[in-house]
Amino acid sequence: MRYLNHNTAENIFLHDEEKGRSINKCPFGHSSVKDRAPVKADSFFTQPIKDPLREGEAFLHQMFEENGIAGGLEARLAQMQQEFSERGTWTHNLDELTFGARLAWRNSVRCVGRMFWRSLTVFDARDAKTPQEIFDAILSHIDWGTNGGDLRAAITIFRAGEPQIRILNSQLLLYAGYQQPDGTVLGDPKNLAITELAQSLGWRGRGTRFDILPLLIRIGDREPEIFEIPPEKVLEVEICHEECEAIEKLGLKWFALPAVSGMALDLGGVQYSAAPSNGIYQGTEIGSFNLGDPRRYNQLVPIAEALGLDTSRNNPLWRDQAMVELNRAVLYSFNRKGVRIMDHHTLASSFEKFCQREEIQNRTVHGHWPWIVPPLSANLSWVWHEKGFNKTILKPNYFYQK
Amino acid sequence: MRYLNHNTAENIFLHDEEKGRSINKCPFGHSSVKDRAPVKADSFFTQPIKDPLREGEAFLHQMFEENGIAGGLEARLAQMQQEFSERGTWTHNLDELTFGARLAWRNSVRCVGRMFWRSLTVFDARDAKTPQEIFDAILSHIDWGTNGGDLRAAITIFRAGEPQIRILNSQLLLYAGYQQPDGTVLGDPKNLAITELAQSLGWRGRGTRFDILPLLIRIGDREPEIFEIPPEKVLEVEICHEECEAIEKLGLKWFALPAVSGMALDLGGVQYSAAPSNGIYQGTEIGSFNLGDPRRYNQLVPIAEALGLDTSRNNPLWRDQAMVELNRAVLYSFNRKGVRIMDHHTLASSFEKFCQREEIQNRTVHGHWPWIVPPLSANLSWVWHEKGFNKTILKPNYFYQK
Repeated sequence: MRYLNHNTAENIFLHDEEKGRSINKCPFGHSSVKDRAPVKADSFFTQPIKDPLREGEAFLHQMFEENGIAGGLEARLAQMQQEFSERGTWTHNLDELTFGARLAWRNSVRCVGRMFWRSLTVFDARDAKTPQEIFDAILSHIDWGTNGGDLRAAITIFRAGEPQIRILNSQLLLYAGYQQPDGTVLGDPKNLAITELAQSLGWRGRGTRFDILPLLIRIGDREPEIFEIPPEKVLEVEICHEECEAIEKLGLKWFALPAVSGMALDLGGVQYSAAPSNGIYQGTEIGSFNLGDPRRYNQLVPIAEALGLDTSRNNPLWRDQAMVELNRAVLYSFNRKGVRIMDHHTLASSFEKFCQREEIQNRTVHGHWPWIVPPLSANLSWVWHEKGFNKTILKPNYFYQK
Repeated sequence: MRYLNHNTAENIFLHDEEKGRSINKCPFGHSSVKDRAPVKADSFFTQPIKDPLREGEAFLHQMFEENGIAGGLEARLAQMQQEFSERGTWTHNLDELTFGARLAWRNSVRCVGRMFWRSLTVFDARDAKTPQEIFDAILSHIDWGTNGGDLRAAITIFRAGEPQIRILNSQLLLYAGYQQPDGTVLGDPKNLAITELAQSLGWRGRGTRFDILPLLIRIGDREPEIFEIPPEKVLEVEICHEECEAIEKLGLKWFALPAVSGMALDLGGVQYSAAPSNGIYQGTEIGSFNLGDPRRYNQLVPIAEALGLDTSRNNPLWRDQAMVELNRAVLYSFNRKGVRIMDHHTLASSFEKFCQREEIQNRTVHGHWPWIVPPLSANLSWVWHEKGFNKTILKPNYFYQK
């Protein structure tokens, strides 16, 4: 498909060097084509790697080619092969770790924020051994990524291999969900299971709708250790509406930093089972999903009441009205507090720019359409009209873990 | 997947007899399984039929089984086979035509309105020979389907075979689109090509934004004949907004009857190349797509102005606000005029009911997710959370034609 330049994107996180550079050919000719072909995955979940050496070779080829590195590939391949023969795996240097983590972002078919893939800052925490050391590195990540509201995309990579390091929380920041005796849920229904697990390990939340869950860090088969995130590390934004004061009185809020922590980074034959990463929020993630969705905080009725909407059958779209106003409130609140967030129109434009740039590089953009279209006014996004996106999963990539 | 009963659907168009009946087994055992398996298609476009006899057999089996018809299948199969051996095709009787057209609706993976599949009224117009006779049948269909605003689902089926009958308009009712010297389009940009074709055949529109296109009816290779639809046959609804008078002054309107006319009905080995059918509108088709989409009537800026919205960068979701209000206006206007229309929440609920009923019948519902989710507040629809729909195309079905 062709990506016409009919939108402009916000130029945050952008690098100039990628403009207009055509694809670089590998300076070496004697490696087999098979070793150099991109590796595809069959599932969004981690799978055992059949041929990690070949995946390592494919990654090194890609890295040297894309970055136009003129020499050193053969030597590095030989080093890698040597390490494989001794240990059955290999050790990424910092350049490889950095390029690989960025590439995994670029390959994330469900992410609409991929224009910023080159901006990812990589923290190498492979030397963290104990749960406490891992937690300390995560706190540093939260601090650095939050940056007082001027969010920066980052990933912290812990060591691969056995015994496996796992952060059991799907995101670094989550609100607890408490099952109530009457069948309702206080807090976020999405997080019932992890909340119950934390409680079974002795954690006791304050019992509000917005209790930040502790981090559960597990190494191998040991019992997960539990770490409370200090409240001063968690930047939150109270939700208010520019024109409707009653919305502020609902006491809604959300945290600033979206940071996925349950996924593995699969890079060149190595699976990093703990590699939390953050970007910035698209407003609809908070407005439409976290707060607005009936399966989550289910706030459309109180929002409609605060707005004084007619919720009778005479006005069948009152939910749609409330949804837009809730989303407006989210963006307004973040902006007022100086916390970086992007609206879905701007992010869709940035994704178009990303596709154009990839096309210039002769690279196909894969995408999982249902995850890329925004839930609000979907057909205003150019993606809506591109139903032909193909969800091929290339490695390196981020994978769910069971 | 399981379709939980957490929504209620409007019980219009509903039949009671389909409740709770388990699947009926074929009373005959000596036909081959191959003949009875559902026929799948590979494309949304018509393809040459490789084995029309087998498709006829599969259809007859399905019809007799689903409807629990105890006798007569073998005799009808023999009749059909006899006709095939003589003419290379067969002639549906009225029951077959009716059940087949309804089944084709039930199999339409892109349609969210399928709960009403049994309500389809079939008009047999296979005796219409000349373009004038075809046009007269279409006018009757428009009258009957429109029904003064109390719309009824109907299909008019013209004869299959050569020379092929084609209605070149994609829908019976369409507004013309005129390319202007300055590059803009007056009217509906979607219909530029058919408008130009009509003009090349001598048609001259009034030159407004809302000129109903004439019907272009072609038989075989002959030049299409052109038929003006009398204005009194076209029920239109002027768009106004309950709370904002300025919207009525924009002079927007839309017609009441959505009637697809470009698709072929592929039924039991026979392709009916002219088989216009109508249902009723889902409000978002008019609000979000026809009038709101930037590639169509592109009315969000005037709507926002009429509403007095802040369209500056301070209010990045003004388009979303305008989109909801335009959709509200569409529903309000249709309801005020007594013209049947359904909002996307009600239609999503009806589709859930359809899925539940199909499940009771042990039938799998196939669906093409991107076409079933509504463009407005998409995640409020249960379909949003069912990304696993499979878009398998079963025959009978309706297919695009090139």
